[in-house]
Amino acid sequence: MNLQNNHGTCPLNSNSQAKTSNIEDTFDVVIIGAGIGGYVCAIKCAQLGLKTMIVEKNSFGGVCLNIGCIPTKALLKTAKVFDQIMKAEKFGIEFENDPKPKLNWSKAQDRKNAVVKKLTTGVEYLLKKNKVTIIKGEAEVASRNILAINDKNYQFKNIVIATGSVPITLNLPGFEKGYAAGKIITSTEALALPKIPKSIVIIGGGVIGVEFACLYAQLGAKVTLLQGLPTILEMLDEDIIAEMTKVIVNKYAIDLITDAKVKELSNNELVYEANGKEQKVSADYILQSVGRKTVIKGFDNLNLKMTERNAVEVNDYCETNIDGVYAIGDVTGKSMLAHVASHQGLVVANRIAKNLDLKMNYDRIPSCIYTSPEIAAIGKTEKQLKDDNVKYEKFNFPFAAIGKALADDDSVGFVKLIMDPETKALLGAHIIGNRATEMISEITTLIECEGTIYELARAIHPHPTMSEAIGEAAEALESGKPLNL
Amino acid sequence: MNLQNNHGTCPLNSNSQAKTSNIEDTFDVVIIGAGIGGYVCAIKCAQLGLKTMIVEKNSFGGVCLNIGCIPTKALLKTAKVFDQIMKAEKFGIEFENDPKPKLNWSKAQDRKNAVVKKLTTGVEYLLKKNKVTIIKGEAEVASRNILAINDKNYQFKNIVIATGSVPITLNLPGFEKGYAAGKIITSTEALALPKIPKSIVIIGGGVIGVEFACLYAQLGAKVTLLQGLPTILEMLDEDIIAEMTKVIVNKYAIDLITDAKVKELSNNELVYEANGKEQKVSADYILQSVGRKTVIKGFDNLNLKMTERNAVEVNDYCETNIDGVYAIGDVTGKSMLAHVASHQGLVVANRIAKNLDLKMNYDRIPSCIYTSPEIAAIGKTEKQLKDDNVKYEKFNFPFAAIGKALADDDSVGFVKLIMDPETKALLGAHIIGNRATEMISEITTLIECEGTIYELARAIHPHPTMSEAIGEAAEALESGKPLNL
Repeated sequence: MNLQNNHGTCPLNSNSQAKTSNIEDTFDVVIIGAGIGGYVCAIKCAQLGLKTMIVEKNSFGGVCLNIGCIPTKALLKTAKVFDQIMKAEKFGIEFENDPKPKLNWSKAQDRKNAVVKKLTTGVEYLLKKNKVTIIKGEAEVASRNILAINDKNYQFKNIVIATGSVPITLNLPGFEKGYAAGKIITSTEALALPKIPKSIVIIGGGVIGVEFACLYAQLGAKVTLLQGLPTILEMLDEDIIAEMTKVIVNKYAIDLITDAKVKELSNNELVYEANGKEQKVSADYILQSVGRKTVIKGFDNLNLKMTERNAVEVNDYCETNIDGVYAIGDVTGKSMLAHVASHQGLVVANRIAKNLDLKMNYDRIPSCIYTSPEIAAIGKTEKQLKDDNVKYEKFNFPFAAIGKALADDDSVGFVKLIMDPETKALLGAHIIGNRATEMISEITTLIECEGTIYELARAIHPHPTMSEAIGEAAEALESGKPLNL
Repeated sequence: MNLQNNHGTCPLNSNSQAKTSNIEDTFDVVIIGAGIGGYVCAIKCAQLGLKTMIVEKNSFGGVCLNIGCIPTKALLKTAKVFDQIMKAEKFGIEFENDPKPKLNWSKAQDRKNAVVKKLTTGVEYLLKKNKVTIIKGEAEVASRNILAINDKNYQFKNIVIATGSVPITLNLPGFEKGYAAGKIITSTEALALPKIPKSIVIIGGGVIGVEFACLYAQLGAKVTLLQGLPTILEMLDEDIIAEMTKVIVNKYAIDLITDAKVKELSNNELVYEANGKEQKVSADYILQSVGRKTVIKGFDNLNLKMTERNAVEVNDYCETNIDGVYAIGDVTGKSMLAHVASHQGLVVANRIAKNLDLKMNYDRIPSCIYTSPEIAAIGKTEKQLKDDNVKYEKFNFPFAAIGKALADDDSVGFVKLIMDPETKALLGAHIIGNRATEMISEITTLIECEGTIYELARAIHPHPTMSEAIGEAAEALESGKPLNL
């Protein structure tokens, strides 16, 4: 195995040569950031025989494990159990005494923290097991092949930038004071509030905003959702948005205000403009979820080519403009999803080790929203296809016509499949329903196999399952007529 | 479209010709039995332009909708919600008063019945919508092309036998009295008991026996499970059986007795032999789940070729030995699963209408067990591969290493993938875990696409989901090393 980087040997520059006298150690690969992209990349590099180092200034597992995917799911589980209890009577379960279930928030938080701890400890264990050198600290690239951390220098052949992202914070009048008072928060703080707020205003109707809106509404908070655009989740198709909007407004009684323009925080009230007039709302907390920005510090000496949005520009192998310098995860600005980061990590490890010829195909990435019902999607939306003037056929099969959905009281939502009428290739799949995030993997695998609607219709979906809705939608598209509808 | 049967015109025999004077109507296809196989076949036949009649003597939807898959799932949902309430504290939910949840069994039954009613009504609606002629009554084939029902004669070109199966009942000393007293029951009665029994003995540790054992244990009954073989679920692999046995014994406190030979019912006690000595057990009910037998009545005049086990012998097109006579579902003795029946129904409809050239491939059928954790499988077991001297590699990835499983407190179980080491073809997949029955469809679709472990490893599984365990197992098999383990 040739451990040189892929583009020939890159000679050390004079600056780094000058420093080789005090080099602590030399690595085939150094990875900056032990988030889900970085740690997976490190493990794979080590497994492929590369001498690997990983640098992390905070906790292992990055945003995803510490303040993102995992802790939100742990709290969502609490919310779901709470919801089930409130609906128990429907299933023939009653209480002798008035049950009055109440949330012991600190216990729910403890459980969340225990789950996070278990996973982050697991990451450290995996890195050690795979003989990755771990350095805690903040890294700075001193020159093309020299990394400085904690006053020590390390030499590397390849470097992988996996430094992630942080929430964007708005800079509006009064906001500085709001931050200081802990009244205006980001998703990080929203996961560890000292108690369940009586009321919360959420700025931003994207994925994170909508997930938190549903979570806190389920936990009993009065939620106001301010969205700058005409709809929530604007990247999705209209029918999915409509279904989710219904849930938000009717089931969760969230006060949804679209086309809202936030102006300032004044006397502890959030001032915004909507329907052509200025309005005010007050709440225990104001959660900003208006997007994330890349974190890139310590790489000035590399002269990286950046995108307009301050992301590191990479090709489908996650290679930057500099030989031997790679970037993965949120910092590439491609798609700020944990599974994209880890997959990019695998692509890079295989590339450096000259193992499998993998590259990123951003058309094959599923995305998930953990509301209730969940939403999951892969491929194109109808919106995109219309914009691109691509011919398509689609079919929406509702869960209300699925036996398992009725038995489980999970009949909200539908499966939408979109196909190319000529080749029967699947162009997109969009699922809204309580098993959507698990169901989407069938479609991802179909696409990876380059299968069509025909194979999806032929695959025997077990009865009774929610996945029958996928088979039914495929059969309807394939033959022109639905069976059980 | 040629609506003759597939093997040339079959002339009416003299007997039926004699009766043509009083023929009520003539059909391209008549289907006997409106279970899930029959009704799906009828809808598809009608959609493909065939003049179609369906005959049913009981309720639409057959065993599956009325006394099988659907009602059990509705009751299981009640059991699951009950279970969640008992574990609520773990998630940070407490009760002001002692909650003492109790089952209102008649309410749970009402809900179950409402779900069944909705679905069976739906089937009738679908048949009518698709212009299938519905006849209620018991059919008898008078001759090759004449069907007699309720003293009327109907002429047909093709006939589909979809008459299903009923539970086998044991004929042991004292059992006749037990049946009469309603003490010995089958799955049918077990779904509609007047109240939750304090104790129940289940004879048979196959799928139905184990599902009911877990259901009634979850609902609070003391369950004794008598299995004639050395293990429960003997068709599964040892590691899956071991995991499930642990759950049965430890989680559900079911009294599992293997290698048990049931002898008689004497003085309201069930007498059986185990560990070389005679033993006795008493309980409110004794549920027999010792298999099912085919129902074939009214087809004597067809001279059908039967298998040793009294099933209608069919080829992969579900054709019997008689031209124009087909059989689908349990009556074929192939695999007594609802989704096999419905798929056979599609195969037959397409065959008769000379539409798609579909045939059954019994290696591509998933099977599911709705215990908690669930079990789902497709393809070969290790057992089968060893018996056949087939080389294989396998990997078991535990849910305990999956973030979503920890967040959801669903970390029991694992995904096992088995591959051919040379071609990397997937030979089998076996999942035990709380999302198994939904997760298996990804594998079914992979197999339908003739994909390999390589594609499964490359497919990006969204984070955080249980389906990541499939990706991890595939990556481990593909590369030789697991990532997150």
